Amino acid sequence: MSMEPQEPGFETRVRESFARQAFMATLGAALARVTPGEVEIELPVRAALTQQHGSVHAGAIASVLDSAAGYAALSLMPADAAVVSVEFKVNLLEPARGERVVARGRVLRAGRTLYVCIAEAIAFDGGRETRVAALQGTMMCLLGRGVSG
Amino acid sequence: MSMEPQEPGFETRVRESFARQAFMATLGAALARVTPGEVEIELPVRAALTQQHGSVHAGAIASVLDSAAGYAALSLMPADAAVVSVEFKVNLLEPARGERVVARGRVLRAGRTLYVCIAEAIAFDGGRETRVAALQGTMMCLLGRGVSG
Amino acid sequence: MSMEPQEPGFETRVRESFARQAFMATLGAALARVTPGEVEIELPVRAALTQQHGSVHAGAIASVLDSAAGYAALSLMPADAAVVSVEFKVNLLEPARGERVVARGRVLRAGRTLYVCIAEAIAFDGGRETRVAALQGTMMCLLGRGVSG
Amino acid sequence: MSMEPQEPGFETRVRESFARQAFMATLGAALARVTPGEVEIELPVRAALTQQHGSVHAGAIASVLDSAAGYAALSLMPADAAVVSVEFKVNLLEPARGERVVARGRVLRAGRTLYVCIAEAIAFDGGRETRVAALQGTMMCLLGRGVSG
Repeated sequence: MSMEPQEPGFETRVRESFARQAFMATLGAALARVTPGEVEIELPVRAALTQQHGSVHAGAIASVLDSAAGYAALSLMPADAAVVSVEFKVNLLEPARGERVVARGRVLRAGRTLYVCIAEAIAFDGGRETRVAALQGTMMCLLGRGVSG
Repeated sequence: MSMEPQEPGFETRVRESFARQAFMATLGAALARVTPGEVEIELPVRAALTQQHGSVHAGAIASVLDSAAGYAALSLMPADAAVVSVEFKVNLLEPARGERVVARGRVLRAGRTLYVCIAEAIAFDGGRETRVAALQGTMMCLLGRGVSG
Repeated sequence: MSMEPQEPGFETRVRESFARQAFMATLGAALARVTPGEVEIELPVRAALTQQHGSVHAGAIASVLDSAAGYAALSLMPADAAVVSVEFKVNLLEPARGERVVARGRVLRAGRTLYVCIAEAIAFDGGRETRVAALQGTMMCLLGRGVSG
Repeated sequence: MSMEPQEPGFETRVRESFARQAFMATLGAALARVTPGEVEIELPVRAALTQQHGSVHAGAIASVLDSAAGYAALSLMPADAAVVSVEFKVNLLEPARGERVVARGRVLRAGRTLYVCIAEAIAFDGGRETRVAALQGTMMCLLGRGVSG
């Protein structure tokens, strides 16, 4: 499986698409590292993201994992492609607490239409790093539908 | 499998716990119907929740599905129990657009420790209803850990 | 979502394809009811299918759930289509014991390329029926690749 | 997270339990490497395991992935523990063909009750190795229920 980008503008495409995901701004998430087949998103922890016990809500974690996985896929797609999520599965490993959560998405298999991705979420709490969630999911490459990114 | 609540205060417990999920307020989600083993959450659609193509972000959909499933489980748990998500899997069926999305969670199997739940998300767009996502997941019942709800 | 078959020969296509799944014969599984968008497979319980505690192995259950879901999808596909599994998720609800397990697959969303399906496995033990597993998964419709069924 | 076994007899326990999984013998699967938190199962490819297009059936692949993940978990559990599968999700990446498939399971998170595992299946075809499937799932540690392994 090649992790070579199909065109040199992959990082710009990913960053522009991420900037159009209003929900990422609502979460306060920021796009960090973008390399071919791997994307990292940072989510500062704050009260607005918590569930009833004070940890970050599983849905907020799933959201950044999903975007990290989707953009890892988009980074390998053709220039005019758009990416949509087909499905994902998330295992919650530990309560997500601390200063920030980093979601790292990676392409496991790049097909013509379907991309299988994994992602993990790491919580940074003081000096400690804890893996708090893992995702395995499928992303779809859409071509020629009048959408991109 | 019984869908009898284990204690009469189930609805109050669910509503109080939901009110403590700050992330639901951040999303703008509201708790609607609460019956034993079934819970409904309403999410008004707005620009702040969208992904790059203008639909509601899969993560926002997953968030209300997860909470609907979790509270469906909590509604059947003992009075002093707390609920946490173990894992969930979401299939995205159609783009989520319209006025609002309703997430309906239901318990499929209530065990002593683990609850298996399903949930579906319906988008209401004008007069049209579209099933936009389906979740299947596992919730855990925590007892005697100094947390509740 | 239409549950109308796209062509009248759907049942013959499903039965012929099932007959070519040598693994179903190895398991001892038989195709029961085939209707548009719904397929049922029967698996007689026997020692050869068990795990270390004497229940039917989760993998054997997953196998008939996967085939039931896949053939539910194939029943709605065009005449020259082939079906392959993209992914599935299985929750094990109770130990599978008794005389036989019946896997019932159903299409939740029929797209052009991707079909989202659910399936459940019921164990029949004396007069008792127990839901022992639930699947949610994605099937893919392949056209013009020189394979069918 | 520690990948230290809780007791020195872990390999014997895993091998004895695997030997009681009649279904693994039915598949023709053999237990290969057993180390703390990691287990490998080999499945020789043969016609009896195939689906309608001649590849190994997704259910057979899922079966060895599930057992590899479950025994990876068991290798870290106390001496009197039993393991059962809670749920797993499998993505099929490529058709499984060749001489044999090797399933490698690994523990991602070892809790008191729940173990989160991943597993991958590699097909060996002539000199070529292809990753054909990936699993992410949850295993449960049962103590004091009169079963072991």
